[in-house]
Amino acid sequence: MRVSVIGGSVVPQPVETLAEDVGRLLAQRGHTVVCGGLGGVMEAVCRGAKEADGTTIGILPGEDRAAANEYVDITIATGLNHARNALVVMNGDAVIAIDGAGGTLSEIGYAQVFDRPISGIRTRGISSSDWLEACETPEEAVEHIESNV
Amino acid sequence: MRVSVIGGSVVPQPVETLAEDVGRLLAQRGHTVVCGGLGGVMEAVCRGAKEADGTTIGILPGEDRAAANEYVDITIATGLNHARNALVVMNGDAVIAIDGAGGTLSEIGYAQVFDRPISGIRTRGISSSDWLEACETPEEAVEHIESNV
Amino acid sequence: MRVSVIGGSVVPQPVETLAEDVGRLLAQRGHTVVCGGLGGVMEAVCRGAKEADGTTIGILPGEDRAAANEYVDITIATGLNHARNALVVMNGDAVIAIDGAGGTLSEIGYAQVFDRPISGIRTRGISSSDWLEACETPEEAVEHIESNV
Amino acid sequence: MRVSVIGGSVVPQPVETLAEDVGRLLAQRGHTVVCGGLGGVMEAVCRGAKEADGTTIGILPGEDRAAANEYVDITIATGLNHARNALVVMNGDAVIAIDGAGGTLSEIGYAQVFDRPISGIRTRGISSSDWLEACETPEEAVEHIESNV
Repeated sequence: MRVSVIGGSVVPQPVETLAEDVGRLLAQRGHTVVCGGLGGVMEAVCRGAKEADGTTIGILPGEDRAAANEYVDITIATGLNHARNALVVMNGDAVIAIDGAGGTLSEIGYAQVFDRPISGIRTRGISSSDWLEACETPEEAVEHIESNV
Repeated sequence: MRVSVIGGSVVPQPVETLAEDVGRLLAQRGHTVVCGGLGGVMEAVCRGAKEADGTTIGILPGEDRAAANEYVDITIATGLNHARNALVVMNGDAVIAIDGAGGTLSEIGYAQVFDRPISGIRTRGISSSDWLEACETPEEAVEHIESNV
Repeated sequence: MRVSVIGGSVVPQPVETLAEDVGRLLAQRGHTVVCGGLGGVMEAVCRGAKEADGTTIGILPGEDRAAANEYVDITIATGLNHARNALVVMNGDAVIAIDGAGGTLSEIGYAQVFDRPISGIRTRGISSSDWLEACETPEEAVEHIESNV
Repeated sequence: MRVSVIGGSVVPQPVETLAEDVGRLLAQRGHTVVCGGLGGVMEAVCRGAKEADGTTIGILPGEDRAAANEYVDITIATGLNHARNALVVMNGDAVIAIDGAGGTLSEIGYAQVFDRPISGIRTRGISSSDWLEACETPEEAVEHIESNV
C-alpha cells in the first residue's frame, strides 16, 4: 500500500534517524512512501526507503520539480503551497506522523478527514485517541497502520 | 480585523449557540467573520454576526456559490474540497476554533503555519500551548486574539 | 451580478484605459467586479469600478492579502499560484477578457468549463465562436454577457 | 522527459486512435506520459503508452484514486476539481493537445504560463502561433516538442 509520512522539514538528527528507519521498514514490507518531497523528515524517510529499494513519491508545494530531495523517485509539483498538505495525506492509504509542527498538525487533521489510519511518533501536543495511535518505534507505527487499513 | 471561525458542520445545539455568541461579539467589536460558508458552526457564527450587523465571508469547498448558508454576505467558491481549509485560515488575521473534528484540526494546524493567533473553545484533544489558547467563553476567546494580532 | 474581468498584469496604456472603462461601466450597471487582484488589467478595472462606486473582489495567487491593488474592496488570498485562475472565473456569473496572454487563455478555457458567457476585447489568437464573443467596445462586451447569463 | 497529453474526456473513435498512437510513440521514444487520468484522450494515450511498455502518470480531479483509468501506473488524487488542470501541465516538460474543449483550452493557456513547448493536433479554434504548433500527425507533434524543450 501507499503510506504518507509527514513531519518537520527541519528536525534534529535523532528524528532524521527515526524517519530513515521508518522509510526502510516501509520499503522492506513492500509499501510505497508518499511525502511532501522536501527536507528533514521527508528526505530522511525517502533515503531510508531507497536503502531498501523502495519507491518514493514526493508531492511538492512549489511549481518546480527540481526542488525535490534526491531520494524522490516520482516528483509531483503542485504550486499550491500549504494547500498541498491535503494532497500528501489523500495520496496515502495510511499515515505515519513523525515530530513536526503546524504543517504536520494540518496533515494529522486531514488524516481524520480522509479516514486514514494514522500512527504518530513523537507528535507533540496531540494525545493518542481513537484516530491517532501514539507509538514508540517504527515497528509499532507500521504495525498499527497495517492492522487498520 | 478579519477573524476566521472554524468548527464542525454538524454540531449540537449548545455549540451552535456558542458559535452564534462568538459571531455576535466579533461583529459588535467591528471584526469581519471569515468561515467555510456551510452549516453548523459556520452558519451559527454568520447568523450571530448578522444579528449585530457584521460582515461575513464564506469560502466554500465546492464550485457552486449557492451552497453558502443564508447569512454569508460574500461567497467565494473554490472547488478545492478540503484543500480550501488552508484558504479559510489564510484569509483571517486571527482564528477562533469551536468544537470540530478533523477538518477543524487541519485548520488549527494551518493557524500555526500562517502564524495566526488562535483561541479554542471546546476543541477536543488539543491542549493549550504557546500557539493555541484554550478558552471558556466567547469574550475570553476574542480578547485573546485581539491582544495577540 | 458578478463579472470576472481577466487580462494581462502588464499591459500598454490604451488597454488600461479600456479596462478602466469596462470597470466603470460594470459598476454603473450595478455589477460587482471579480478579478485576480494584481496589476495591469486587474488594477485598471478595479479603479474604474471604484470611480463609479462599485464593489471589487480580488482573488490573489499568493498568500499575502497586502499584494492586492489599492482598488480591491474584498481581498481573498489563495496561495494557489496559477491554479487560482479557476477560482477567478468560477466566482463570476459571466466573464470579460481584455488582451492578455497564457493566464488569460487559461481563464477563457475555464469560462467554457464553468459555462459562463464570455466577451473578449482584444483577445489575441482566439476567434469568436459560440462560447466567446469578440467585441469592439466595453458597451458591446457588457451587453453580450448581460444578454446571455 | 515527461510529456503532458491533454484532450477531451469523451471523444470520437478516430481521436481515441490518434491519442493511442501518440501514447505509443511517446513510450517508444522513452518519454513518460502525464495526463488527467480519466477517460477519452486520457485513457487512450495511457493505453498506447502501455502497449509500448511506457510509464503513465494520472493526476485526477477528484479525491479517489480508484477513478483512474486502468492504464495509469502512478495515480495522484488532488480533490481540486478543475484547478487540477494547472498541475497536469506543470508536471510535464512539454505538452501535446489533442482535440478537446474548455478544459483543454485552459491547459493550453497553462502551457504558455509555464513556458512549455506545445504541439496541437485537431485543437479547435486555436491557431498555430509562436507558442502552439498545429500538427497533423503524432510524429510531427512529438518531433516539435522534442526540438523545443
